Parts: sequence; C-alpha cells; structure tokens
Amino acid sequence: MYLGSQLFTDAEYETRLANVRTMMDRQGLSAIIVTDPANIFYLIGYNAWSFYTPQMLFVPMDGEMVFFAREMDAHGAHRTTWLPAEQIVGYPESYVHRPHVHPFDWVAFALRQRHLIAPASRGGSVGMEMDSHFFSPKAYRALFNAIPEWKLVDCFELVNWVRSVKSDAEIQLMRQAGMVCSEAMRAAIDTIDIGVRQCDAAAAISQAQITGTDKFGGDYPAIVPMMPTGAAADTPHLTWHQGTFISGEAVVVELTGAHNRYHCPLARTVALGPVNKDVDYVAGATAEGLNNVLEAIAPGVPTRELASTWNWTLAKYGLEKHSRLGYSIGIGYPPDWGERTISIRTEDESILEENMTFHIVCGMWMDGYGFELSESVRVSATGVETFTSFPRDLIRK
Amino acid sequence: MYLGSQLFTDAEYETRLANVRTMMDRQGLSAIIVTDPANIFYLIGYNAWSFYTPQMLFVPMDGEMVFFAREMDAHGAHRTTWLPAEQIVGYPESYVHRPHVHPFDWVAFALRQRHLIAPASRGGSVGMEMDSHFFSPKAYRALFNAIPEWKLVDCFELVNWVRSVKSDAEIQLMRQAGMVCSEAMRAAIDTIDIGVRQCDAAAAISQAQITGTDKFGGDYPAIVPMMPTGAAADTPHLTWHQGTFISGEAVVVELTGAHNRYHCPLARTVALGPVNKDVDYVAGATAEGLNNVLEAIAPGVPTRELASTWNWTLAKYGLEKHSRLGYSIGIGYPPDWGERTISIRTEDESILEENMTFHIVCGMWMDGYGFELSESVRVSATGVETFTSFPRDLIRK
Repeated sequence: MYLGSQLFTDAEYETRLANVRTMMDRQGLSAIIVTDPANIFYLIGYNAWSFYTPQMLFVPMDGEMVFFAREMDAHGAHRTTWLPAEQIVGYPESYVHRPHVHPFDWVAFALRQRHLIAPASRGGSVGMEMDSHFFSPKAYRALFNAIPEWKLVDCFELVNWVRSVKSDAEIQLMRQAGMVCSEAMRAAIDTIDIGVRQCDAAAAISQAQITGTDKFGGDYPAIVPMMPTGAAADTPHLTWHQGTFISGEAVVVELTGAHNRYHCPLARTVALGPVNKDVDYVAGATAEGLNNVLEAIAPGVPTRELASTWNWTLAKYGLEKHSRLGYSIGIGYPPDWGERTISIRTEDESILEENMTFHIVCGMWMDGYGFELSESVRVSATGVETFTSFPRDLIRK
Repeated sequence: MYLGSQLFTDAEYETRLANVRTMMDRQGLSAIIVTDPANIFYLIGYNAWSFYTPQMLFVPMDGEMVFFAREMDAHGAHRTTWLPAEQIVGYPESYVHRPHVHPFDWVAFALRQRHLIAPASRGGSVGMEMDSHFFSPKAYRALFNAIPEWKLVDCFELVNWVRSVKSDAEIQLMRQAGMVCSEAMRAAIDTIDIGVRQCDAAAAISQAQITGTDKFGGDYPAIVPMMPTGAAADTPHLTWHQGTFISGEAVVVELTGAHNRYHCPLARTVALGPVNKDVDYVAGATAEGLNNVLEAIAPGVPTRELASTWNWTLAKYGLEKHSRLGYSIGIGYPPDWGERTISIRTEDESILEENMTFHIVCGMWMDGYGFELSESVRVSATGVETFTSFPRDLIRK
C-alpha cells in the first residue's frame, strides 16, 4: 500500500517543520492554520481527494501538530500521513454541507477542549492562509467567532514560501514528473492531427499522464490538458471540445507530468498544415526569448532580470506580453500546479537560489491566434537544468 | 468552435436568471456575488479552467450582470459565454498572486466606477457565497473593506438551490454523461485485475471518460477516479498508486462520466479472487438497501424517508452507515461533483421533485475493507430513472 510518508525521511519532515517555524517566528506568529492541501501534504504527507470538505492542520510554535478532517477521511488518514493517531481528529458527518453550521465550528471547540487555544494566543498572533483555495469566508468566520482570544492575521503563503527551495528528494520526484511529462507530450504530438476529435487527443494525453512510465506511475494532474486551438488560442485556459482539428490551425498544448503530487508542466504548439505567417514570426521570437531567459538563469540572479531579458528580446520583434513569464512549481492539487509565491515579472523582488523550480511560460495570446512554448526548470549550482528536452520550434504536422 | 451558450436556449438562460432573482427577492437581496464556477457556468455559460485565479459574476436585482475575470481570461470569455463584451471585464495581471493586493480590490473599484454599488446597496443586502470553493477570506475582506455601503450577508448557496431541479435540456446532458459513465465503468471492470498496476487501471478509466462515445465526447471529471483497495478501502477518498492489485482484494471504484460539465457518477466494487466473507455479507445488505431506496423515490417523498428506508434495511443486517446516503448532482467543477444543497440523510428537510437528480452512494467503509455501490438517478414523474444500468452485485474476477 502506498504510504506518502515513505517518500521522505523523518529528517526531511523535521527540517520542513523547522523551516516553517523559523518563518513563523520571524512573522511573530504563535501558530498557523494550514488549509492548502499542498501545504498539508508538504508537512505531514497526507494525500487524498478529500479537500472538497474543510480540513486543516494546526501548527503551533511549540507542541504537536493536529490534523482535522471529515470523520471518514480522518479514519484513513494514517495510510498517507506519518502523524500518530492521537494527532488526527475527525469532525462529525452532521457538519458536512449544512447551511447553518460549519465543520470549523466543531474544530474550534475541539481545539479548546484540547487546551490548544491559550498557548497559541499567548505569544503572538495566529496566522491563516487568507487566500488559500478551499478556505472559505464561512470557515474563517467560524474560527473568528468561536476563538475571540486569537488575533487572526494573514500568514501570506508562509508554507508556500518555505516550499520554494526544493530538497534533493523533491528534485528527484520532479525529474520523474518530467519523464511522465515527456510521455504525455509525445502522446499529444502523436495524436493531434487534422480530423482527430479534440477529446480523443485529450484522452490519449490523459492516459499517458496517468500510466507514467514502465518503472513508475503517473499521478493526477492539478490541471487537465489545455488545448486552445486556432482562433480560440487567443486565450489560455480553454479545455478540449468534441469537434475535430482542422487544417491551418495552430494548437496550443499545455500539459503536465505528475508523480507523487510533484508537477512538471510543459507547453508546445502544433501547426496543422499551413498556418498564418504571424504564428511563425511569433514562434521564432518566443524561442529566442526563452533561450535567452534560460541562459540568464543562475543562483543570485533577480527574477526581474529574467523578465527584462524576455521583454527586451520580444521588443526587438515589436512584441510584448502583459502576463508574467513564469512561476514557482512543485507540489500541486487542483485547481493549480503553481505555488503562488514567486512570479517571474518585473515587479517581483525574489532572487534565484539553487533548487528553486519554475515553469517558464512564454504564452503569446494574440488576436485570432496563439502560440505557447514553455520549460520546467531547476536553478542548478551554476545555471539551469530543464526537466524535459523537446525541441523549441513550432511543431509541424 | 465549442460555444457553451449554444447548449441552452436564450429562454432557458432567462428562466434561470428569473428563478435566481425570485430567490434573491425572497431573501431580501439587492444583488449577489457569484464565485462558484458551476454557478457562473449555469447563469452565463462561461467555461474555462480559469477558476484558480479569482473571478466573479455580479448579479443585481435590476440591470445587467457583469462578469469579472483575469485579463487573459476575460479576453476569450466570449467563446463560451453569451454575455455581451461590455459586460465582461478583465482585471490587470499585476493583481495576480501578489501578497499585498487582491484582484477584488480592483473589481470593487470597477464596480464603483460603473455606478453599480449604490443601486445594490439601496434595496437590501448583498449576498455572497460564503462557503464557495475559490472564494477566499482575502477576497471577501477586499470587498468588505472597499464597499462599506454594502451589507454583506451569506446567500446560502442560493444559485446551487435553483440548480437542484433540472430542465429537459439538462436531463439530456446528464443522460449523455451517463453513457460516458458506462464506458468508463466498463473500462474499469475490464482493466482491474490481479497483477495490473493501479495507475494503469486509472489511465484506462481516464481515457474512456474523456473519449466519451463515438457520437459525443467526454468532459473532464470534477473528481478523478477513486479506487480505495483492500484494507485501504476503509476510507473513501484515496486515489490510485503504482502498486499492483493482488488476489483477495476488494477494489472500490468510484468514477463519473461528464459531458459539457454535467456529471453522472457511479460506484461498484470488484472482488479479485476469493475475498473476506464480510465483503459478501455487506454487498448483499447494501444491494438490498439501495434497491429499497430506489423503489421509494417519487415526487413528494421527503429525502429523510429515503435515509430511513436505507437505515432500516441496514439495521436488519446489524449494519449502519454514519455518512449521508447521497446528494444532489449536475454541473461539476473540481474539486466536487455534488451541488452542496440536498443531502439524503435523516436531518434533511427537502421534498423530492420531478427532475431532481442525485448520486445515491451506499459506501460502507468498514474496518480493514470497504464496499461501495451507487446509482445516479433522476426523480421521474412517477418514480425513478437510473442513468446507467450495471448489475448491483459484487463484481467477481
């Protein structure tokens, strides 16, 4: 049976928690409430599709962490987390999807009964992931109303920031995700063709994503394959439909490989027959821009310099891109494989460090067509490692 | 190109909005802020994997709806929504994933500039989906701080409740989702076997889900295939791993068919070789319970009676189930295919109406094994319609 806790050593989990507590101390927090499933997985290994009902990990500065989930999920949590049974608490089914109560009403009371409220309110504020998916205003107000002792503040993606520099074990999983990604992109390129239904191409990609390789399996992607096509490729987030690909269309394929929740996304563009010459022009400029950005990557380089490198290259061709050039990646759960921390753009203030990992996305959503090219990369000791190795040209079929 | 708006007539969209406004009037609301992607799809047809950045539909009692999304998504929104361009507004990229601002800071100002705040504050309160996925406390506080004129209240899944009775066009899509579901379940039963890797079975299911049928394609499922296996089937929400199925295991398969965002889920249990006799015992009791529940379904019947029918049948066998017996289904986006309104349990106060649709889930998560059996159904004029027709026995291989 798969046990998430076997993925990493006890020492690695201890380091993660210590790093989180260092950040907590710096932000003057006595405890944090962790609700993002990726952060929960990072700290305790818990992994199940249970995040559609509320769950939280209570992380105090001192003392043990406690994980709260729906009763049926708490019951089996030990299959993926290393937390001992006494630190896993299930809330009753009668709190699920009912208008006048919220599971965190119960959780707040459980925290009180366990004498966990006073210690957390003594030394400072209690941090919450105020912009986390799956942490609703109702959940927030339940805690706010039931625990007036706490000074609730935003912890500003505290755990996400700790995640931004990867351990060697994490890099290994991302390399495996990269191999799964290569299989999926190969399936995409093999399948996408004139006359083929979009859904059949998506099905082939999806199968490759989950099959993985002979040696290890694929995990579910945090985002399904996206394939904006032809004129509709002027916007990035359309999924497939049941119509067929037609000659003259450029098909943007953005997909990921996933392995044990770690992600390695990749985008390429497939030209079906003769396409608008503008696509070729943009493809050339974009590939040059991406190459320049990859060459600029090294520890110590400010992320905003990567954005400038990209902007300058594009400007030579009279082009520009308004959206960010990339973002930090690693663990992902639907709906997003990004870490919501570092974005590569001129306003960003981060400095590259070894073992940071990014999806560099050169997405050009033009009027009436689109082109996309990306790489998932690691900042290495001296430069950059790409997790996959597909040619960066427009793919012609 | 696929246009979501072509799925339903203008008249159907008008009826949906009118029904929502009737509920708004009943709850004394002058406007609602709709953030649940399923509710946005229901009201305006907008459909893209863009819900990982904030988006909202402003629905006033009087006047036109306005949809706010990230700039790159607003740009292509017309490909799936029938809303005219002037009612689609993109917020700048510089508000995406930054610690000190939120897109709804900008949206609040845009609402003010469009003179939409005063009308909404005059007649009553403004309702928000306080427990919606993808509506964070930070988003809520952005609106709360920037629009002090509004009395913000919980609208309690208002649009979700309107969705609970389906139109004929919706039922047609759910029947198609049922056909996709049958293909996916067949793929599961064909593939799951001793020595097969779990990930390979999940890959086959996923391919069938997205391929759909020869006549129409499948859409992405709101929840990936779940397959708790053997001892780990004592908890429902585990996904697959890369290990192989072994003899003596009972494999619980819960999956869905999806078509144009409408869902039809189904669960069956596959016994690999000789399994624990307790599984047979539970399988028999569960099938009898489900059959009794299906026979009890008809318009006018209280949902709590279905729960009682189930409980009584189970009690005959000395069994009980703590969690709800089912829930309302229809449109789904990750992470949930349920509508978060009617739950079939003894505390529920709903009365069945024709064209309500449910997933009746008889999930028995026992100690050391599990068994699951379900049907997706429509309340018909006189009884029940099941969307698929698999035998309800334990499947032996």
